[in-house]
Amino acid sequence: MAEIAAESTHGAPRSVRHEAICHAVFELLSEVGYDRMSMDAVAARARASKATIYRAWPHKPDLVIEALVHRFGGTPEPPDTGTLRGDLIALMTGACRVADSPDGAVVTGLMSAAAHNAELSRTLYRCTYQMKHVVHETIIDRAKARGEVPADTDPDLLHEVLHAMVLTRRIWAAGPLDDVFVVHVVDDVLLPVLRQARDPHA
Amino acid sequence: MAEIAAESTHGAPRSVRHEAICHAVFELLSEVGYDRMSMDAVAARARASKATIYRAWPHKPDLVIEALVHRFGGTPEPPDTGTLRGDLIALMTGACRVADSPDGAVVTGLMSAAAHNAELSRTLYRCTYQMKHVVHETIIDRAKARGEVPADTDPDLLHEVLHAMVLTRRIWAAGPLDDVFVVHVVDDVLLPVLRQARDPHA
Repeated sequence: MAEIAAESTHGAPRSVRHEAICHAVFELLSEVGYDRMSMDAVAARARASKATIYRAWPHKPDLVIEALVHRFGGTPEPPDTGTLRGDLIALMTGACRVADSPDGAVVTGLMSAAAHNAELSRTLYRCTYQMKHVVHETIIDRAKARGEVPADTDPDLLHEVLHAMVLTRRIWAAGPLDDVFVVHVVDDVLLPVLRQARDPHA
Repeated sequence: MAEIAAESTHGAPRSVRHEAICHAVFELLSEVGYDRMSMDAVAARARASKATIYRAWPHKPDLVIEALVHRFGGTPEPPDTGTLRGDLIALMTGACRVADSPDGAVVTGLMSAAAHNAELSRTLYRCTYQMKHVVHETIIDRAKARGEVPADTDPDLLHEVLHAMVLTRRIWAAGPLDDVFVVHVVDDVLLPVLRQARDPHA
């Protein structure tokens, strides 16, 4: 992110220190959760100076986003199966796999903390939105070109609904995040929504 | 609930003690959250004996459900506006009003706690599902009778999708829970889903 690029290097090479800091943040989120993770604990765990951390990431949400981007590798490659349904199945399968993993427990924990922390909530939302927007736009653009959805279908609708379905299933433990759930969300929710979609900003 | 009906009355009249206990639970959820709310604190706040509370509600999730049912008054009356769209607007408006209120903050806090507490999560899910199921079934049955949705439309789909949209909007602070959001969810998500719905259990 912009902050770390601007940071001057001293001591360990920047990439090694950056790696150690991101790793420390993820470990602490997993062990104690967002609310009880202190910047001091991150510095101690990463063997970095507090000054280094505060200079690069003045606020705790920034540090969490940095660790998330580092862990999940920025914008993923959009699936390209040749049909909208195939692309949505691939997208949902990936989302469910992450939600169901130990990483998903960290992400769910962050969302819990975000429920009573507006700054974290806004930062997480912006971050996940930015990371996924290109993927959703690409999938919807291809579906438009194949005539599978109306020309004014808003890719944000895919983001909003898919995310809501997976997050709620995970939070409520309403059932497994398995292939049956993937097919249910794609066939019963996402495809009807996208095929009939109109631009909410129109 | 079944447990309190079976409880023998001594000391204060049952209804007064029940009221005090539910009130204490709701206050403590609001003040300290689920994880830090102890059964002992509930007893002290409600001026009830610990034995009384443990006998009626052996587990903390049961006590929380009792307080929620007491607060939100059991099954609400389903809206009956004459159209599916009108009923959905009324239902969504009510759900957004609760989510946006101080009560909604307590409920969101519970959901946060539920994200890392499977017992609470399952109990909350069963409770809200049971409270709302009759409402959703009535709305969908009327829409079927008017020919607005296919005869095999599953009312659970309304529960699942409406709830996911409101909860996620609230957790992410993705925007206000206002009339624009209500109309967006009804027109862009719920109506397309319900009109094209097929029974996922078929």
